[in-house]
Amino acid sequence: MRIAVLGTGMVGRTLAAKLDGLGHEVVIGTRDPAVTNARTEPGGFASLVMNATSGSVAMAALAAAGEAALAGKVLIDVSNPLDFSRGMPPTLDPVNTDSLGEQIQRAFPAVRVVKALNTMNCQVMVEPGRVPGEHNVFLCGNDESAKQAAAELIGSFGWPAGSLIDLGDISSARGTEMLMPLWLRLMGALGHADFNFHVPHS
Amino acid sequence: MRIAVLGTGMVGRTLAAKLDGLGHEVVIGTRDPAVTNARTEPGGFASLVMNATSGSVAMAALAAAGEAALAGKVLIDVSNPLDFSRGMPPTLDPVNTDSLGEQIQRAFPAVRVVKALNTMNCQVMVEPGRVPGEHNVFLCGNDESAKQAAAELIGSFGWPAGSLIDLGDISSARGTEMLMPLWLRLMGALGHADFNFHVPHS
Repeated sequence: MRIAVLGTGMVGRTLAAKLDGLGHEVVIGTRDPAVTNARTEPGGFASLVMNATSGSVAMAALAAAGEAALAGKVLIDVSNPLDFSRGMPPTLDPVNTDSLGEQIQRAFPAVRVVKALNTMNCQVMVEPGRVPGEHNVFLCGNDESAKQAAAELIGSFGWPAGSLIDLGDISSARGTEMLMPLWLRLMGALGHADFNFHVPHS
Repeated sequence: MRIAVLGTGMVGRTLAAKLDGLGHEVVIGTRDPAVTNARTEPGGFASLVMNATSGSVAMAALAAAGEAALAGKVLIDVSNPLDFSRGMPPTLDPVNTDSLGEQIQRAFPAVRVVKALNTMNCQVMVEPGRVPGEHNVFLCGNDESAKQAAAELIGSFGWPAGSLIDLGDISSARGTEMLMPLWLRLMGALGHADFNFHVPHS
C-alpha cells in the first residue's frame, strides 16, 4: 500500500520504518518540494495517511498536505495535543469539550479520521511484544470501514485482533487524548516508556 | 478504626458497607445533626476520612465536616469532578491545569489528601476480584505516610500490594481524574462497569 506518514520526529520515523519493513511504499510528509510533487504523480499521494506530527502543528501539516490529496483517504491520527507553552508537565489543548481528533475531522470533513495508537510510546505501537501480556489499542472514528482499514494495518504491526477496542465515534478521541497526563506520570513512576494500558473486564 | 465516609450515594454506601464488614466503626457523613454531634464525641470524628461525594459538592461536604475535625487526618478522595451541566457525556471541572484532589488539598492544607480508587466503579473498589487478572489502583498525594495508610486500607479490600501504583504528589490526581472520559466510553463499549485499568510494563 502507498502510505503517507506526516511528521519527521521520532514517532513518524518509527512508523515509517515499520511500514517500509512491511513492504509498503512510504511517503514521508515534509515541506520538501519533492514530496509535494509526489502528490501529483500517477497513483496519487497515498491510499492511507498516518498523522504523527506533534499535536500543535497537526492542522498546519494536514493543510500543507492539501485537502484534495487527503479527501476520501483513511487518516490514522496518532498525535496528541500536548501544549508545552505553560511549562512542564505539558497540558492539553484542546481538552475536555473537544479533541485534536475531532478538530481534524471537522477541518477535513472528507477525510476518514481514525484516532488510534496515541496512548502509547511509538516503539510499543510498532512492536507490542515489548510490553508483556495483554494490552490494548483504542480506535475512535465516525467511519466503520476506515476503522476496519486501520485495524488491519495495526494488526499487521503485531497486535492481536482481540487487543483492539472500538470506543465509538471520533468524539471518543477526547478520552484517549486525556490519557496523556496519566501516561506521563506513569513514565515518571516506572522510569521508562515500555508500558501500555490494558482493560481487563468480566 | 473509626472511619468517616462522606457521601450517601452508591459509592459512599458501598464503601461504608465494606468498611463495616471489615469491622471498622463507620460514620456516614450527612447533614444530619447526629453526625455533626458525633464529631464532638470522645474519640473524635474519625481517624480516616473517605470522600465519596459527587465531585461538584465535595468542597461543600468537606467544609460541612469542618476543617478542625479534618485537620491531620488522612482523606482518601475517591471522587471525580464530573460536570453534567453541559449535558451528556459529562465533562470535567476542574481539568487539565488543576484537579479536584489538588483543590481539596489547597482548601484544607492540614488534611493529608490521597487521591485513590477514583478510576473504577465502586463495586470494583471493594471487590477487585470482580475483574479478572491483574489491574491497578493509582495513589496520588503529598504525604508519604498518608499514602501508606491509604495503601493498607485499600489492601484490606482485597487489592494485592503489587496492584498499587504511586504516581507521585497530589498534582498527579489530574491524570487519574482525566481517565473519566475514557472510562465512560469503555463502559459504553463493554456494556457494563466490571472493568478496570491495568498497566503492564517491561
